[in-house]
Amino acid sequence: MLYSPHLITHRIMPENQEFPMLSLSSRITPEHLFYRRNHFLYPNVDMRFWRLSIEGCVNKPLYFRYDNLLNMPQVTLPVTLECVGDKRSFFEPKTRGEQWGLGAISHAVWTGVRLQDLLHAADVQGNAREVTFEGMDKGARTDMPGVFSYKRSLSLERALHPDTIVALYMNGKPLPFRHGYPARLIVPGWYGMASVKWLHRIVVIEEPFQGPFQVVDYVFNRKPLTPFAPEPITTIRLNSTIAGPTDQEVLARGENWIWGIAISGSAPVVQVEISIDNGNSWLVASWMEQQEAYSWRRWCWKWTVTEPGTYDIKVRAKDAAGNTQSEMADWNVNGYGYNAIQHIRVYID
Amino acid sequence: MLYSPHLITHRIMPENQEFPMLSLSSRITPEHLFYRRNHFLYPNVDMRFWRLSIEGCVNKPLYFRYDNLLNMPQVTLPVTLECVGDKRSFFEPKTRGEQWGLGAISHAVWTGVRLQDLLHAADVQGNAREVTFEGMDKGARTDMPGVFSYKRSLSLERALHPDTIVALYMNGKPLPFRHGYPARLIVPGWYGMASVKWLHRIVVIEEPFQGPFQVVDYVFNRKPLTPFAPEPITTIRLNSTIAGPTDQEVLARGENWIWGIAISGSAPVVQVEISIDNGNSWLVASWMEQQEAYSWRRWCWKWTVTEPGTYDIKVRAKDAAGNTQSEMADWNVNGYGYNAIQHIRVYID
Repeated sequence: MLYSPHLITHRIMPENQEFPMLSLSSRITPEHLFYRRNHFLYPNVDMRFWRLSIEGCVNKPLYFRYDNLLNMPQVTLPVTLECVGDKRSFFEPKTRGEQWGLGAISHAVWTGVRLQDLLHAADVQGNAREVTFEGMDKGARTDMPGVFSYKRSLSLERALHPDTIVALYMNGKPLPFRHGYPARLIVPGWYGMASVKWLHRIVVIEEPFQGPFQVVDYVFNRKPLTPFAPEPITTIRLNSTIAGPTDQEVLARGENWIWGIAISGSAPVVQVEISIDNGNSWLVASWMEQQEAYSWRRWCWKWTVTEPGTYDIKVRAKDAAGNTQSEMADWNVNGYGYNAIQHIRVYID
Repeated sequence: MLYSPHLITHRIMPENQEFPMLSLSSRITPEHLFYRRNHFLYPNVDMRFWRLSIEGCVNKPLYFRYDNLLNMPQVTLPVTLECVGDKRSFFEPKTRGEQWGLGAISHAVWTGVRLQDLLHAADVQGNAREVTFEGMDKGARTDMPGVFSYKRSLSLERALHPDTIVALYMNGKPLPFRHGYPARLIVPGWYGMASVKWLHRIVVIEEPFQGPFQVVDYVFNRKPLTPFAPEPITTIRLNSTIAGPTDQEVLARGENWIWGIAISGSAPVVQVEISIDNGNSWLVASWMEQQEAYSWRRWCWKWTVTEPGTYDIKVRAKDAAGNTQSEMADWNVNGYGYNAIQHIRVYID
């Protein structure tokens, strides 16, 4: 109690707060430190009236009450969620939006029903192409008039993937309200914008969904603009983060641990390397836990330092497909998907 | 409760956390959001044994129990405390130490006994030159071996100033443990390093105090080093801070408020000016409250904006002595006393 890290507040209404990465001490993020990223004020959820409906291109439109969902077969998946704006504050030049540091990312174990079970029950029609997911949160946007629900879509294929779930539990307890109670879509391996909170309406459609959270936000806009449609944001990019030491920290000589996390939404992360000489030479860090399909993985490296001075420390991850992180950030107008090699400086007295 | 800002965590042990400036909504900082800056772990304070002793160059060495102090005449002063590392993260190049943002500053009303009353009771000798103040917090340093108490000194003159107090209450309640219970020195107008928490020992001395928190830390070290002793840090520099909007925020057209605080430890702040065109023209902000000797003062300015675009907003304060803030930061090795003009960018959609 005496030493308690807190969420790092970026905005109060809507509530945007990040996990304090320097407090990383377990694979699962404590619930009160799990990052919060909201587009709107929290919705009013009245469980007397809440239903999850499945509509559109289905032969049997239907709805589920909360207890219907609780009584269906459940699957459990450890899944790291990361906001695609994570690390935005490191872009140069800076980009518009919440200036997230290292912690718009957290990890939990999610339990719920497979989305494919719900879609099969509704009997999807042959012309179906996408599935939209509507949260109960809604409000105004700065760029167009009107009131908008937070709404996203998936391809029918991704919707039917056995690991796409409607989560009812987080870390073995009913979803906390702030994280989407009573039901939240979880799209493992994708950035967090896909995992719609306070889910209440699923619509199967035959045309590509064109809502603003699908085609205005959450696409890679680059300059100069091209005539092609901008690339939509999907899977979490290969990334690694130093939780400690922190940038500009002053340390004593002797043994100092360097530790953090690595993740990728596409191929397994197979190696993390540390440099203490600004990238001239690299050493392999140790894993603190096993590989899991959709989870960040903690690593550490014991640094025995005898010489006082200034040290430039870098970290980079490699995945099973042979990819590695780049020195150069992939700058884009909205500051999405930062995954350049992280660099910190520490001082040994 | 649903929307609750939190302290911004920079370090857990020792606990260094800043006030989330964007939550500024009253002159007095709520206790749970008052910034915390510690050099060491929290001390063990056992009130059965706690005494405040006055020793050294005094004719009547004595000690006070807690109830002795409570029964003495009390004075009440509103005083803003600011860590001299506040805004350190804005220095370019970056400097060693906690990367404080805008919020290593908070305001409270302090009640306690005048230090001069305690010193008079002890009958200070004619050879006295300085007074040292020792906190109960102690620990190791990175730059020299040994265990050190947090200990600072004041000139005898500043110690005898009627507004230098040994505070027992913060905002009308006994000091919170994290803010120095049972007794904390408060040196109004000075940076926070002078206001020693968990105060338990006052020693009157005849030579300048040479402890590391007096002559190694909390001095302005510049490069190249000069043969002169570095300037010690004392009064809070003229400064102003934008609490909202936040840097890189996206706003809608219409009325937007720009608001924040201004402060100086030397002369009264008489004016705050806002520029929305990157410093080409300046407009006078309104005060939200009266001038008080040692308090920050909130200001605001209503910005009616009709043109979409990118706006570079700046704020600068002026004091009664004719000083104004500079565009250029006064860079120094330890990143102390940042008070350059603040610049944020906002986007109007």
